[in-house]
Amino acid sequence: MSPDGGRAPVRGNLGAGQPLTNRKSIKLGDLVEKFGGELIGNPDVRIEQVATLESARSGELAFLAQSKYLPELKRTHAAAVVVGPDARNATDLPQIVSANPYAYFARVSAFLNPPPPVEAGVHASAVVNASARVAPSAAIGPCAVIGRDARIGENTEIGPGCAIGEGAIVGAGTRLHANVTVYHDCSIGERCELHSGVVIGSDGFGGVWEDGMWRKLPQIGRVTIGNDVEIGANTTIDRGALDDTVIEDGVKLDNQIQIAHNVRIGAHTAIAACVGIAGSAKIGRRCTLGGASMIYGHITIADGVTVSAGTLIMKSLDQPGTYTGVYPFSKHQRWLKTAAHLRQLDQLVERVRELETKSRKPLGDET
Amino acid sequence: MSPDGGRAPVRGNLGAGQPLTNRKSIKLGDLVEKFGGELIGNPDVRIEQVATLESARSGELAFLAQSKYLPELKRTHAAAVVVGPDARNATDLPQIVSANPYAYFARVSAFLNPPPPVEAGVHASAVVNASARVAPSAAIGPCAVIGRDARIGENTEIGPGCAIGEGAIVGAGTRLHANVTVYHDCSIGERCELHSGVVIGSDGFGGVWEDGMWRKLPQIGRVTIGNDVEIGANTTIDRGALDDTVIEDGVKLDNQIQIAHNVRIGAHTAIAACVGIAGSAKIGRRCTLGGASMIYGHITIADGVTVSAGTLIMKSLDQPGTYTGVYPFSKHQRWLKTAAHLRQLDQLVERVRELETKSRKPLGDET
Amino acid sequence: MSPDGGRAPVRGNLGAGQPLTNRKSIKLGDLVEKFGGELIGNPDVRIEQVATLESARSGELAFLAQSKYLPELKRTHAAAVVVGPDARNATDLPQIVSANPYAYFARVSAFLNPPPPVEAGVHASAVVNASARVAPSAAIGPCAVIGRDARIGENTEIGPGCAIGEGAIVGAGTRLHANVTVYHDCSIGERCELHSGVVIGSDGFGGVWEDGMWRKLPQIGRVTIGNDVEIGANTTIDRGALDDTVIEDGVKLDNQIQIAHNVRIGAHTAIAACVGIAGSAKIGRRCTLGGASMIYGHITIADGVTVSAGTLIMKSLDQPGTYTGVYPFSKHQRWLKTAAHLRQLDQLVERVRELETKSRKPLGDET
Repeated sequence: MSPDGGRAPVRGNLGAGQPLTNRKSIKLGDLVEKFGGELIGNPDVRIEQVATLESARSGELAFLAQSKYLPELKRTHAAAVVVGPDARNATDLPQIVSANPYAYFARVSAFLNPPPPVEAGVHASAVVNASARVAPSAAIGPCAVIGRDARIGENTEIGPGCAIGEGAIVGAGTRLHANVTVYHDCSIGERCELHSGVVIGSDGFGGVWEDGMWRKLPQIGRVTIGNDVEIGANTTIDRGALDDTVIEDGVKLDNQIQIAHNVRIGAHTAIAACVGIAGSAKIGRRCTLGGASMIYGHITIADGVTVSAGTLIMKSLDQPGTYTGVYPFSKHQRWLKTAAHLRQLDQLVERVRELETKSRKPLGDET
Repeated sequence: MSPDGGRAPVRGNLGAGQPLTNRKSIKLGDLVEKFGGELIGNPDVRIEQVATLESARSGELAFLAQSKYLPELKRTHAAAVVVGPDARNATDLPQIVSANPYAYFARVSAFLNPPPPVEAGVHASAVVNASARVAPSAAIGPCAVIGRDARIGENTEIGPGCAIGEGAIVGAGTRLHANVTVYHDCSIGERCELHSGVVIGSDGFGGVWEDGMWRKLPQIGRVTIGNDVEIGANTTIDRGALDDTVIEDGVKLDNQIQIAHNVRIGAHTAIAACVGIAGSAKIGRRCTLGGASMIYGHITIADGVTVSAGTLIMKSLDQPGTYTGVYPFSKHQRWLKTAAHLRQLDQLVERVRELETKSRKPLGDET
Repeated sequence: MSPDGGRAPVRGNLGAGQPLTNRKSIKLGDLVEKFGGELIGNPDVRIEQVATLESARSGELAFLAQSKYLPELKRTHAAAVVVGPDARNATDLPQIVSANPYAYFARVSAFLNPPPPVEAGVHASAVVNASARVAPSAAIGPCAVIGRDARIGENTEIGPGCAIGEGAIVGAGTRLHANVTVYHDCSIGERCELHSGVVIGSDGFGGVWEDGMWRKLPQIGRVTIGNDVEIGANTTIDRGALDDTVIEDGVKLDNQIQIAHNVRIGAHTAIAACVGIAGSAKIGRRCTLGGASMIYGHITIADGVTVSAGTLIMKSLDQPGTYTGVYPFSKHQRWLKTAAHLRQLDQLVERVRELETKSRKPLGDET
């Protein structure tokens, strides 16, 4: 096989530090017309990219999210800034005043940095089973493998080295970056984004201990993923043992998350990196799980719960709120002492109890 | 390269929700003949699949593992159920009474859902070194790469995008799902299953601090994996620094586990997801490590130990039993208070000591 | 495509247990000439490999790092050993006395076990975009994919199944093992080693909560990685949101580490497996982060800090030293009691306070 003829095998937006040719640009006046907000300053200033206050250069738009960054606002070389009502006129730069500067900024960035266009077609090195249905507008990257009876939607992009199993479905407008694996019969919705190394539909950890060894329970459920779901690099989602593992619409998963069989994640829940969720746990909608938090199996977390980073949740939570359980760190020598005391907390409680008993005794009755 | 000629690049069993044609089915009478148990009801009822009590439909067999699911037993639409002796006749449905309903059910499921047959042959897009020995009955998937002098056993399946290093051995009847990497000289036994994203034989973390930087100690050991081992998605096992890293027979590893160089895992030990085991740790046989538990390096864990989820084991355990060390979670505000007290546990102990001293002093001797 | 004609698709050093033909060997006399140290014994003894005291055979060099291994020194079958000054003449074997036996041993091992030579050339099954610049001495493995405008340096090796995104740079002498993914515009320095399953440049976890759902902030920064960096299997490093994520020279990352967007890791810092570092954290130079430690976002860790395994760091550390925060484990039953007391630490503190108040009251004033 010769080098591919002109089709980019691995694409992406131009990214920082690249020449700005071919990039979109927009005038401040057009920005407020498009996205609202109040403009103070020259409407003809042209914005080509977004940036932080610190690194912004000419042609770039920055934003001020919190007042603690006001010193940086003074020093910025940005062409213009987005600020909240409280920071109105805190700078002489052209500025857009918006109730939520960060959200406004994100909208501008999404306009200036759209995902790269999908270059339709199946790369010559891809291996697509004859029975698979690939939409004409879809892009199948080099060395990608599409299994028997799989279906790939319109404008969907399957990156280099991806493997899509038999009967799997990838919805319209969804993008799989390089080296993603989707097992047989799993289903991914529309407008999703799966990052490299993601594995969808691997077998759940299902064993029966019998005769001194583990007998495997075949994992015959699937994974079904809703629309507008993003899944970070190297995250794994196991297929259900009998019923399906379900990820609802709008869920955002960071990198290296492990979701076991038969878990259900409610819509618009966000989960930070390194989280583990054990089998059959049900996570509510609009929850936030902090990094490296761990959720026991077979428990239910209510809608709107926030779990702090590093916290292990061992039982169901039926009320929204923030839950935490992390050992506070200290200098190692101090930790050694505290940990020793903690190990003897039982004795300390007993000693306090004895003191209390003594203190209730009549005076002079010491023995 | 054109789409592959009829060979399924990524296969799998039919999975839930698929038409039942081509599926095995078996009568209840034949089931008890095959697997034992006592049948109550019509022996001619035909079972095509297994399911949960809740989702079972006609033609499907469910099971009752615990009495708390009795209400679901009442409502089930299953064709038949497997129950324990204590639940005998708790339903009017045809039923198989077995001492261990879950294990019985697993056996039936394994019969009805065998792994897909291995379709022998090397896919046209695979890259197999001329010196590699691939058994004629083995299946090498699309875009898989088999290195110099590697050996692939009878009925072994190497999935799409897998890379098998120079001199590596994959035993008979073993299945590697898509995108698995096995480094040079590593050895995998028979009837194993490695899920996508698994990496076997990457370099251990071996450095020597010298002259203000890390000098690498070449990692010249291997990984040797026994028979009947299952390894979950994105789990990594490092090769030994000098001697080998060893995984004994029947070990079951869940997803995203990290096993460092020169670790040994005893036979039939099961390790849940997100566990980390540091270098040169020795884990006994028939142990169970809960999710996200962490094991220090250079320690030894006895046979039959259970480590609870989220627990960090810092020293050797020479007795079987269950070990736990997790900070209990609470509402965040309460955690803040408790954590503050914990940080000052040292002072609290001191205060109790002073109270004890006081309480032992003769009356009136306050100064 | 037919099996590749003689070029090894996945190579590596010979590893343990392989015949020693084609291997380097060196006499003890030449070793001390090359690496220093004091030789006691026959300078003509030939060393072909390094090994542990326990497993060393004829022709192999072992080392004694700590005096607790003296019994193994007595039993070893090594041809020679490296010892510290304190163990001089603790054996009759030929020996090299060195101030740092382990570092000496590592140097000898690196000499005897050099990385395999890079076999220059682009494999026929690789897909290299016509606009990419690949050095003539570089090796591009089977089924690797090199994107538009990417640059691959001299003597650089891109393993099987790797995907290098548009505009990405991989420096001279760097080695990517199989199935590594580098996203568009990321930059990797010289003499680096990236293990299988590594993902560089995936999108950071950047969302804005608006109108009941998460709006994505495009991640337009890059990842830039210095020289002499090693990255373990399945580790992920996210690209910056606006500015770059930066890994400085000489950093060593173990397996399954997650580095979020806009993190900076200072030169020569070593990070053990399963660590997570949240967004915008700055880690100093020459730090050591223990396995499964977790670092909050937007904090700064000073140079020379050591974080113990399993510790969560929630705030900036401006002083070097060792920091720890791990719940000590115990037998499960005991943990249950201690955890119950811990949950009621607030009440215990209150009880002690009451006892103190009582003890300060004048005698007889009990009500």
